[in-house]
Amino acid sequence: MAKAIPGRAEDYSLWYNELVKKAGLAENSPVRGCMVIKPHGFAIWEKMQQQLDKMFKETGHENAYFPLFIPKSYLSKEASHVEGFAKECAVVTHYRLKMDQEGKGVIVDPDARLEEELIVRPTSETVIWDSYKNWIQSYRDLPLLINQWANVVRWEMRTRLFLRTAEFLWQEGHTAHATRQEAEEEAVKMMHVYADFAENYMALPVIKGVKSESERFAGAVDTYCIEALMQDGKALQAGTSHFLGQNFAKAFDVKFANREGKEEFVWGTSWGVSTRLMGALIMAHSDDDGLVVPPKLAPIQVVIVPIYKGEEQQTAISNVARSLKKEMESMGISVKYDDRDTQKPGWKFAEYELKGVPVRMAIGPKDLENGTVEVARRDTREKNVYPVEGLAQKINDLLEDIQNNIYQKALIFRKENTHQANSYDEFKEIIETKGGFVYAHWDGTAETEEKVKNETKATIRCIPLDSDNVPGTCMVTGKPSKQRVIFARAY
Amino acid sequence: MAKAIPGRAEDYSLWYNELVKKAGLAENSPVRGCMVIKPHGFAIWEKMQQQLDKMFKETGHENAYFPLFIPKSYLSKEASHVEGFAKECAVVTHYRLKMDQEGKGVIVDPDARLEEELIVRPTSETVIWDSYKNWIQSYRDLPLLINQWANVVRWEMRTRLFLRTAEFLWQEGHTAHATRQEAEEEAVKMMHVYADFAENYMALPVIKGVKSESERFAGAVDTYCIEALMQDGKALQAGTSHFLGQNFAKAFDVKFANREGKEEFVWGTSWGVSTRLMGALIMAHSDDDGLVVPPKLAPIQVVIVPIYKGEEQQTAISNVARSLKKEMESMGISVKYDDRDTQKPGWKFAEYELKGVPVRMAIGPKDLENGTVEVARRDTREKNVYPVEGLAQKINDLLEDIQNNIYQKALIFRKENTHQANSYDEFKEIIETKGGFVYAHWDGTAETEEKVKNETKATIRCIPLDSDNVPGTCMVTGKPSKQRVIFARAY
Repeated sequence: MAKAIPGRAEDYSLWYNELVKKAGLAENSPVRGCMVIKPHGFAIWEKMQQQLDKMFKETGHENAYFPLFIPKSYLSKEASHVEGFAKECAVVTHYRLKMDQEGKGVIVDPDARLEEELIVRPTSETVIWDSYKNWIQSYRDLPLLINQWANVVRWEMRTRLFLRTAEFLWQEGHTAHATRQEAEEEAVKMMHVYADFAENYMALPVIKGVKSESERFAGAVDTYCIEALMQDGKALQAGTSHFLGQNFAKAFDVKFANREGKEEFVWGTSWGVSTRLMGALIMAHSDDDGLVVPPKLAPIQVVIVPIYKGEEQQTAISNVARSLKKEMESMGISVKYDDRDTQKPGWKFAEYELKGVPVRMAIGPKDLENGTVEVARRDTREKNVYPVEGLAQKINDLLEDIQNNIYQKALIFRKENTHQANSYDEFKEIIETKGGFVYAHWDGTAETEEKVKNETKATIRCIPLDSDNVPGTCMVTGKPSKQRVIFARAY
Repeated sequence: MAKAIPGRAEDYSLWYNELVKKAGLAENSPVRGCMVIKPHGFAIWEKMQQQLDKMFKETGHENAYFPLFIPKSYLSKEASHVEGFAKECAVVTHYRLKMDQEGKGVIVDPDARLEEELIVRPTSETVIWDSYKNWIQSYRDLPLLINQWANVVRWEMRTRLFLRTAEFLWQEGHTAHATRQEAEEEAVKMMHVYADFAENYMALPVIKGVKSESERFAGAVDTYCIEALMQDGKALQAGTSHFLGQNFAKAFDVKFANREGKEEFVWGTSWGVSTRLMGALIMAHSDDDGLVVPPKLAPIQVVIVPIYKGEEQQTAISNVARSLKKEMESMGISVKYDDRDTQKPGWKFAEYELKGVPVRMAIGPKDLENGTVEVARRDTREKNVYPVEGLAQKINDLLEDIQNNIYQKALIFRKENTHQANSYDEFKEIIETKGGFVYAHWDGTAETEEKVKNETKATIRCIPLDSDNVPGTCMVTGKPSKQRVIFARAY
């Protein structure tokens, strides 16, 4: 059978695009830059969403929903926020269509112009802090720990499925606190929640850090982030958590009466992850045969394919398959028994490989005789024949093993692709020939950062939090540096 | 304590609005017609969403996600669809803002005009059937059973929280089938799923029926619906399911090769319910003290409030409360122990009444002595003192009883407010003085329907499916009528 997708070595970017489409994850829509998330892609996103939502609730957050539209004037209220977001936005100017008198079909009704244009939310700080003004009066109303699952729009010029799309799905947490310390702790806590999710569910090792000033969120005092490494040696920012200080509280006049009855401005955070995580998941683990999905996020963890001739064999195999399915499901494993007669077993094998189902079972006439099942794991492509007896427990352990193996593989890859550069020349060579994460000393200035970016396309991914804090001298300017920071070319 | 909200008899409409706001369900936003769904309201919606999603998946549907924007020209492709939807829409005409040179702040960049305007989806048939064209080639690709959870925008001029808002949240199912019969069965099946949900989760009795031609969805061959009755005697359409025939398949040229290799147009359905259901839930069950939520949709089913003086009592009561909480939670009951010291017990009682928590427990010093707990149910306001021993099981049964009681109460209300009219005069009197559902004979013409609507503000809610099919003569024209249909004034 011809390969469904090109190999990674051949053309990494094409491999990614073809994989996303052929595995039924997403495709481009007729609206420029907007994607259609197809059922298989959405099922994986749903698993991610459900787990994240659970983790947010366990850390005390509640969900709410704020409007899709933001009045244009709101964007201007926080000075640096407007710089960052009031650019490539979808602008609603009219609220009515009508039939053209001259037979040109449907046209925009010029009489239905909005007094103030509405922006389709690129992020919701402004409209949410405008609400918080009414929700917060006293210290009794704090902390306010709110999350929203929503679609947002940023009019990107160069888009790629999941990684950069005009419309994307995400969650945005927006919290309000009585003290600076509490807000800072919240921002850091959510970074840890994201890291926990990335490592233990996505099987994606991440580095926790804080952004340099120029990479900071527009309106934040500090931006915490998690950074992951993809198989082509490029970095991907997988989540950010912002300590907003009192910036939005001041912009929207959100004050509270403290226990002494004195008015103070509220402290804030915001934090988000998006369908971009789908891109990270795909690029971190998948191979030339298709998707590799960690079992914890796989909508179908085990697929059973029968191989039979004639009705008698089919019935006998179905009995074994259904009883196995039932047993595994009682252990919380999601199982599909694919007994469609419209497709051949070989076609099904390729299909489930492409779609990244972690474990595939095949049951044929020989298995029937021997009381066995052929079990193939997607991550290592290893195949084994096991007795039906005790198989469910074995599969349960196998899924755990696959989850760990995918993580370990990504961790080893990251270790092998993490370098130290002690001079700018060495740095440039590593970035150009090897890629990956490069730990290097930096003098802390935006000028040096900009110069490195212009000359190498590498940016500071973060100032890592678990650094050894060994000082040195900047690789570019020779000025003092407090610790090494992490550079990489990034998505 | 002063009542938080006005009574229903006083001003039903004001009662509803104040209840929605004071119970923390939703509020108006700075964007005209768009609401903010607050945490308590969103938590109830989430329960509804999760249950519906489960029922959709159990009936074989998968979730996907399609773009927020629809190219203007798409709306025109299905002739009657454009009539129905290409009116009050949010229109995106530009994709960029910029800083004004003359210091007027942020303005729309006139150079960033879109070649073709984009409509914020009022419903997604057009963009989805455009995708289906690529997804469907053969009978093997059918049926295609897809659902989407999304926000949609219809620029309503007169809005009311949950009932009619410019932006609302909903689900829209869009299915494609090889035969007319299968598509019709799907449309009917989903009407039954909605009815099952309304009756068994929302505790809301509904009438299943089919819409008259003038109340049909724009682009449908038949619209099935569920209709509910509110406490003010007005009807509310709680869900619709449309058999689309081949209308959208023809508009978007979606054909499939059947088993004989012959090309045919695909048959379609679409079906949806929205945050409007929140309005139905509130208006059907709540009372002058606030919200009444059926236990199956209550985010918190039981709240425990301690009443104590001093730390010793507090500790002892907390021990009882926490052990009760744990026991109930192990039975799948959601419990909140509210031991905040910032609010008094009386304040908490009123608050949880207003928010509709089905069961409230109070534990005071006397209860400690006697090994008892005071249990108050929200629906009947009944209070009882029960021994702690065996209480969890009792509460489990009580929640079931409350769920049934709320349904029975609504069912009795509907029976008492369902009438038959045998003449147009009688009809007008009932509509004017009593309201409710009125069964009457109709000649089947749009003219008569229109006349009744203009003269009485009552519309045909549906042609009920469980009718006795007794023919008669139209109350207005005296022409023959096949069966009685249901009229009501409606939301």
